Amino acid sequence: MKNSLYIVIVGCGRLGSYLANQLSRVGHSVVVIDANEETFDDLSPGFSGFRVVGDATQIAVLKEAKLKQADVLFATTHEDNVNLMVAQIARKLFNVAHVLARVFDPRREQVYDQLGIETICPTSVAAEIFMLAVAGGRAAQGDAKP
Amino acid sequence: MKNSLYIVIVGCGRLGSYLANQLSRVGHSVVVIDANEETFDDLSPGFSGFRVVGDATQIAVLKEAKLKQADVLFATTHEDNVNLMVAQIARKLFNVAHVLARVFDPRREQVYDQLGIETICPTSVAAEIFMLAVAGGRAAQGDAKP
Repeated sequence: MKNSLYIVIVGCGRLGSYLANQLSRVGHSVVVIDANEETFDDLSPGFSGFRVVGDATQIAVLKEAKLKQADVLFATTHEDNVNLMVAQIARKLFNVAHVLARVFDPRREQVYDQLGIETICPTSVAAEIFMLAVAGGRAAQGDAKP
Repeated sequence: MKNSLYIVIVGCGRLGSYLANQLSRVGHSVVVIDANEETFDDLSPGFSGFRVVGDATQIAVLKEAKLKQADVLFATTHEDNVNLMVAQIARKLFNVAHVLARVFDPRREQVYDQLGIETICPTSVAAEIFMLAVAGGRAAQGDAKP
């Protein structure tokens, strides 16, 4: 089993920077791509990976990030279209084994699925947790109120 | 065990409307509150609950939603401050047993905690899933690349 992975993260917002910091901390090789250099300020002082400034839908930018070597690509920008496009490019042109994209609009999840791209929709995940809370609350506090 | 709960949902956006539709469908009594009446368009034709138009930080609006009878309150608006305030009012003034609030900025989670309000941060949850994907990917595809 390989312990250290080469991970490319597109988008250095709250999610991207958190993942970059955590994954770098536990010893993975991390490259973060963002069009806005200021977002790199959210990387922790201990971040030992690389930063690439640029539009990740551009092949040249992905090449600069050495995407061909990547085990994993995370598409975490705030734009579903960008995440979809980057994820597709990573799968089809760079043969990245594990591609995961954030998608805000769950209606797009089917499209991703059909393209073989794994997605995470934060709203759907939150909804599931809320639903579980109801199920749990019913069991735990079922007859607290008449 | 009580099977049907009285659930008040504040905010009828993507998350709120989804929860309202699902919870109504499985037989719970649901009231949705939103300041913008148009958001109720996202409720499904089968939604059998009530709609209250108004600012949920106003006691009168919460009274109209009969919050005192509620087993559960979900604060799902897009504004952390609104969710925090509504959740506090529900806990302290209406004694709602189970209060759950969405919070976008994880730095606020501690504040909520101290106030006894359970929170869900979609970004944090998504981050955990991404992290698990790395852990899973490492195990499953560990030596796929040199």
